[in-house]
Amino acid sequence: MEKETARIEAFSDGVFAIAITLLILEVKVPGPSADLRLQLLKQWPSFVAFIISFAFIGIMWINHHRLFTHIRRSNNTLMILNLLLLLGVSVVPYPTAVLAQHLGQPDQRTAAILYNGTYVVIAIFFNVLWGYAKHAHLLPREDDHATARKITRQYAVGPISYLICLLLSWLSVPLSLFANFALAMFYALPPHYAVRRTD
Amino acid sequence: MEKETARIEAFSDGVFAIAITLLILEVKVPGPSADLRLQLLKQWPSFVAFIISFAFIGIMWINHHRLFTHIRRSNNTLMILNLLLLLGVSVVPYPTAVLAQHLGQPDQRTAAILYNGTYVVIAIFFNVLWGYAKHAHLLPREDDHATARKITRQYAVGPISYLICLLLSWLSVPLSLFANFALAMFYALPPHYAVRRTD
Amino acid sequence: MEKETARIEAFSDGVFAIAITLLILEVKVPGPSADLRLQLLKQWPSFVAFIISFAFIGIMWINHHRLFTHIRRSNNTLMILNLLLLLGVSVVPYPTAVLAQHLGQPDQRTAAILYNGTYVVIAIFFNVLWGYAKHAHLLPREDDHATARKITRQYAVGPISYLICLLLSWLSVPLSLFANFALAMFYALPPHYAVRRTD
Amino acid sequence: MEKETARIEAFSDGVFAIAITLLILEVKVPGPSADLRLQLLKQWPSFVAFIISFAFIGIMWINHHRLFTHIRRSNNTLMILNLLLLLGVSVVPYPTAVLAQHLGQPDQRTAAILYNGTYVVIAIFFNVLWGYAKHAHLLPREDDHATARKITRQYAVGPISYLICLLLSWLSVPLSLFANFALAMFYALPPHYAVRRTD
Repeated sequence: MEKETARIEAFSDGVFAIAITLLILEVKVPGPSADLRLQLLKQWPSFVAFIISFAFIGIMWINHHRLFTHIRRSNNTLMILNLLLLLGVSVVPYPTAVLAQHLGQPDQRTAAILYNGTYVVIAIFFNVLWGYAKHAHLLPREDDHATARKITRQYAVGPISYLICLLLSWLSVPLSLFANFALAMFYALPPHYAVRRTD
Repeated sequence: MEKETARIEAFSDGVFAIAITLLILEVKVPGPSADLRLQLLKQWPSFVAFIISFAFIGIMWINHHRLFTHIRRSNNTLMILNLLLLLGVSVVPYPTAVLAQHLGQPDQRTAAILYNGTYVVIAIFFNVLWGYAKHAHLLPREDDHATARKITRQYAVGPISYLICLLLSWLSVPLSLFANFALAMFYALPPHYAVRRTD
Repeated sequence: MEKETARIEAFSDGVFAIAITLLILEVKVPGPSADLRLQLLKQWPSFVAFIISFAFIGIMWINHHRLFTHIRRSNNTLMILNLLLLLGVSVVPYPTAVLAQHLGQPDQRTAAILYNGTYVVIAIFFNVLWGYAKHAHLLPREDDHATARKITRQYAVGPISYLICLLLSWLSVPLSLFANFALAMFYALPPHYAVRRTD
Repeated sequence: MEKETARIEAFSDGVFAIAITLLILEVKVPGPSADLRLQLLKQWPSFVAFIISFAFIGIMWINHHRLFTHIRRSNNTLMILNLLLLLGVSVVPYPTAVLAQHLGQPDQRTAAILYNGTYVVIAIFFNVLWGYAKHAHLLPREDDHATARKITRQYAVGPISYLICLLLSWLSVPLSLFANFALAMFYALPPHYAVRRTD
């Protein structure tokens, strides 16, 4: 029951594009009465949360795109697992807004745990999707095993790394966010394998 | 006056992707003043409503995708009927938010009736769309009648099942929501027919 | 400097899909404290405004789709004129929300004028787009002139009809909205010409 | 590690389409209690900000489309640079809303600086994207150098022109906004080169 992946990619692109563009709606607009410059400066937690989340979703999209240059066939389970990943991505504006509201406030630790925790879950879903695609033989035959193993290794680091960010929340919230952002930068790097696609 | 279905699918994908991603906007962000952990826990109705609606729209998209692997030609009536289905899908964030606001409150029955009732209507629209496509001969000739009949049978269960969920709202709101979620899981299962598409 | 219209159509589909799905966000969710059933009933103006606007944007999309089965080439001016049309479409949620807020209130006439007036402008933009495409020879040569003239006649009725809706606002707001909805239904009808596309 | 640009364009189209359609959400709907006509007139700053931003994003999309008729191959760096540009585009609704809230108010200069400053940054990102594509040889070999140089010259004007708008904010806020709008109109003009694409 294999099908083409084109419409899955189109639907996923839509969810990624919407989630990343909705992020700005959570940055509240200062009211017309007060000193604007001061109010804008006070909004730094919103800007920090916005930038980290934008980087995360954007890099996530690049990696999703990368995966699907390898995944060539689709089936029902893949669609469900991809939907789980999209659930995680579409949720991101919520912990982002919670973090923006509480960064620098007494309850910032709880907000950071929620934020980093969301990313742990998304990283796990990402690995499950890739793992399934590999084991269900949805990759083309021409894909050599060395390449697939390299990707597996690169992505397997994800859940553990975000778990470390989560644990860092107890030590220092700013440090955990910095580590989170640094991770996005790491995944922005080109993977050390050549993408070979036949079409 | 038959045309290709590509742009209908693209437009539908857009509406599905936006509706599913807008759901998170209805989960209100706790204000900066109070105990965050407690406030997050108190939001459980929002999370429950979010998850059920996400599952519903996501599975609905998979099934819409499935239908359109069979529907190969389009005409004006099909576009109108598809628009009716999209009307239902785009409405979902509203009953979801109403449910989130009232679950566990005195008026939760009314909210559950509105919620389950919306799904009854969408399930009917879905069957009307498929029924029309079949009777207007928009499926390819190669599609054997046994396959079409199997799909018809699987989807015909929809309106009746969601009607049962609706009736369960009077007995127990949690039970009706659980049944609603179980139904989404049922429709996530692969159909017992092979998808044969010639291109 | 002619180019293909594929990316224009994709971008337009996006704007149409988002505008139509955002409409539901303007239907306010009743607060948790009051009698829900009563509050839902009191929201009838929101539902009326939602339905009319959904029908308008949906039918508008079908007609945009129809136009672009004829428009085969693109240039800079066409992109600008299409952008003007999308400006009109993306604005729709605003007069819809204003109408929803004021229908049945003392100021409903002003709201209806704004609402119908928006549609007059959009209908004009639509005709300008089609008129330009015809005169700039962006239609394929095979398109016979009789077909193009039929389309021209059908769409030329638009601005005048919505102007009549606008004028009806002074006579009776409900009547003007009913006429507006009836117009959407008229444009939902298949045009009385065969679409002949070569690819 | 070059890949096709189709999915980058699709994702970018999504972000552009969503950002441009979200602009209207920032135009606040007048409450049901007061004189509607007066309230609508008082909203002129929202309408002014909306129109300028719509023009900017729309014209930006046309130019992004233009660039990608030249960029034929993609790599990791191009995706990151494109993401930076999309970051700028997706941010636009925020300075637009700030401007709408403060235009005609004591703090309008700060709002205009934020607004024009955002556009300076976006214009820089746009030039960086094009500059990289050119130097990384992502354009097809058939593209003659004269054409590429013409595009470079047209876009290089962008950051400087928006910087002048920014500086005009200190002299006169209305003038700076008028100049900003005039710039969008300038970039709406067709470039003085023929687009030759082989496919």
